[in-house]
Amino acid sequence: MKFGGTSVADIERIRNVGRHVKREVDAGHDVAVVVSAMAGKTNELVAWCREASPLHDAREYDAVVASGEQVTAGLLAVVLQNMGLNARSWLGWQLPILTSHAHGAARILDINGEEIVKRFGERKEVAVIAGFQGIHKETGRITTLGRGGSDTSAVAVAATIRADRCDIYTDVDGVYTTDPRVVPKARRLDKVAFEEMLELASLGAKVLQVRSVELGMVHKVKIFVRSSFEKPEDIDPHGTPPGTLICDEEDIVEQQVVTGIAFSKDEAQISIRRVQDKPGVAAAIFGPLAEANINVDMIVQNVSADGKTTDLTFTVPAGDYQRSMDVIGKAKETIGFERLDGAADVAKVSVIGIGMRSHAGVAAQAFKALADRNINIRAITTSEIKFSVLIDAAYTELAVRTLHGLYGLDKA
Amino acid sequence: MKFGGTSVADIERIRNVGRHVKREVDAGHDVAVVVSAMAGKTNELVAWCREASPLHDAREYDAVVASGEQVTAGLLAVVLQNMGLNARSWLGWQLPILTSHAHGAARILDINGEEIVKRFGERKEVAVIAGFQGIHKETGRITTLGRGGSDTSAVAVAATIRADRCDIYTDVDGVYTTDPRVVPKARRLDKVAFEEMLELASLGAKVLQVRSVELGMVHKVKIFVRSSFEKPEDIDPHGTPPGTLICDEEDIVEQQVVTGIAFSKDEAQISIRRVQDKPGVAAAIFGPLAEANINVDMIVQNVSADGKTTDLTFTVPAGDYQRSMDVIGKAKETIGFERLDGAADVAKVSVIGIGMRSHAGVAAQAFKALADRNINIRAITTSEIKFSVLIDAAYTELAVRTLHGLYGLDKA
Repeated sequence: MKFGGTSVADIERIRNVGRHVKREVDAGHDVAVVVSAMAGKTNELVAWCREASPLHDAREYDAVVASGEQVTAGLLAVVLQNMGLNARSWLGWQLPILTSHAHGAARILDINGEEIVKRFGERKEVAVIAGFQGIHKETGRITTLGRGGSDTSAVAVAATIRADRCDIYTDVDGVYTTDPRVVPKARRLDKVAFEEMLELASLGAKVLQVRSVELGMVHKVKIFVRSSFEKPEDIDPHGTPPGTLICDEEDIVEQQVVTGIAFSKDEAQISIRRVQDKPGVAAAIFGPLAEANINVDMIVQNVSADGKTTDLTFTVPAGDYQRSMDVIGKAKETIGFERLDGAADVAKVSVIGIGMRSHAGVAAQAFKALADRNINIRAITTSEIKFSVLIDAAYTELAVRTLHGLYGLDKA
Repeated sequence: MKFGGTSVADIERIRNVGRHVKREVDAGHDVAVVVSAMAGKTNELVAWCREASPLHDAREYDAVVASGEQVTAGLLAVVLQNMGLNARSWLGWQLPILTSHAHGAARILDINGEEIVKRFGERKEVAVIAGFQGIHKETGRITTLGRGGSDTSAVAVAATIRADRCDIYTDVDGVYTTDPRVVPKARRLDKVAFEEMLELASLGAKVLQVRSVELGMVHKVKIFVRSSFEKPEDIDPHGTPPGTLICDEEDIVEQQVVTGIAFSKDEAQISIRRVQDKPGVAAAIFGPLAEANINVDMIVQNVSADGKTTDLTFTVPAGDYQRSMDVIGKAKETIGFERLDGAADVAKVSVIGIGMRSHAGVAAQAFKALADRNINIRAITTSEIKFSVLIDAAYTELAVRTLHGLYGLDKA
């Protein structure tokens, strides 16, 4: 079970978390809980580090910010004990959770779960584990996994102890076919394959940290996204609670062709016309953008028609549009192109579904449906389980609703 | 160097601490710094533990409250690095600082200072050590030393690394001959012997934790109490800063007969008249008081005049007076006595000085001087380097001033 910062923001909420845990223990389960810091605490600690020095040492930063999870782990253990359960808190260095040396963005290398499994057996002891943190083996220094790292801690612990399931309690009750604020008919998905979730997550369905999904996919950990707002006493521990199970493709019996529609507004499109079609030209374009710290998303390059020049289109965050145009403009000599076009106000709409692998013509249906609505497609990219179209931002909602209906996602 | 919670209450103050440290490093010293949690933070953490459960597990309590010092140690390391120094933070489990198993009031058993000494030599690295905390060797659990424990951490670290001196920065600039609010002529003492400090401290001169002084005495660590309010840039690192050195008796060349006058008001006196003078009677009296959690301070028992009964007097905190009278009254049958007298409003005035060992008649002078002022002495206790008198609380200030003058402490 994993609970985020909002769920442990004060003692009353930690007590509520305790009741969720007790319900599972009472139902006969062995439970490991991973907790984040109280909402706001990590920000406070980060702000202090910044105030202490803009260029703070990542090792000391990690020692400071990891203290937030230490507090909630200890407090939840106290709360559980007060409810009559055996419970013990575990910090990253205590299990230990060994990580890489990349302070502030460390990767989990190995977790020793023997002691907590032993205690499951000996005395049904709940393990309360501080999320987001680990220890570097050689230096003995505290490391942190980066923002949202507690999701990753939870899935990694679940993999180590061979948990039946990793329940992530969040402020949403699952993963939806699309944003319900745009399409009121959006439905919660009962099951999503890891690969689909990766595409949905990175496209803006901000439910889970991407790395935690990757980890789940590699170790085949069933991740269950569910609401932390449900009252613990209303939940039947033997029933099927509402939520979305993120699991292996093979565990999804009734596979739909399309699982969800993701979208991101606030994109800007830049098209470089008649670029020299020669080796090194991509580096000449994207090198200066990377140096300027501009994040390039979609890249489309057509096969050259004349064998000499081609058109190249890419997207950047809308806020970086003017700066990107300037960077490319300045590098015109080095790159060698004829004209620079752009649009500051475009959106990317993506259709995701593992079923696309075996179904032909899925994208073609979309192109026709959008054309019927007079929505102009500026660019298209496709992958095995996803395709994305770039359109004028004004048509975003219409396009999402159109595609949501087209692939039968409106149906209950 | 040790800095308390007020000195590290925010980043600006931590920066000020950094300047103190840099001054010492620039003067050529190797420095280990021990820090407390930011002022108020430990109270916040303790309050959360209590809210989580009135009967919280001491192990989890320690994990929670030890996080406060972790934050300041990391932040001071960042600040020092920002000033161009090499610095590294160390938590209790990292050095490690091994302690007993008594969570919440653990005693330091051993400290490994090898790594920090090695780094002094290799790269002049300042060690920033989280005070108040350690680790229990067998369980691997975080322990804390109890309130004020950072003083003890500092002296213990100083002993381990054979420091020339342990500077305790406090909100007073040293130890005084008595409370300057009562006697404006009170002077700061340049040097105090460990034994004297122990008597002064436990009698209310709340400058240092008693255990830190004991530790200093055992390991012969020179403890220097000095002000944290002095501006770092005003201090000549090669000069003699204002403060009080607590040291071995032998290091004090010009030993005075009397070093200081301590006092405590808010005491209550209870006298049991004509108690049976037989074995077990003391247990019959003080057992029930201990069970009622009443702290007995001074105990005076006269030699029996008739060989059968005696009078026994002791003091308790004024707030516990009525409760103590009730406890003793209820135990009248078991104890066996004639009458119970008491006074709710008495004070204890103590005269401390190692010189008393070799000077006769020191106490007699006091009795005469107090009699000259018509101050009635209710009871007297003496030890090798201290004697205390119990008087009516109303006369406290007069008695302290009288004795302060009598023993020449008024002189500059």
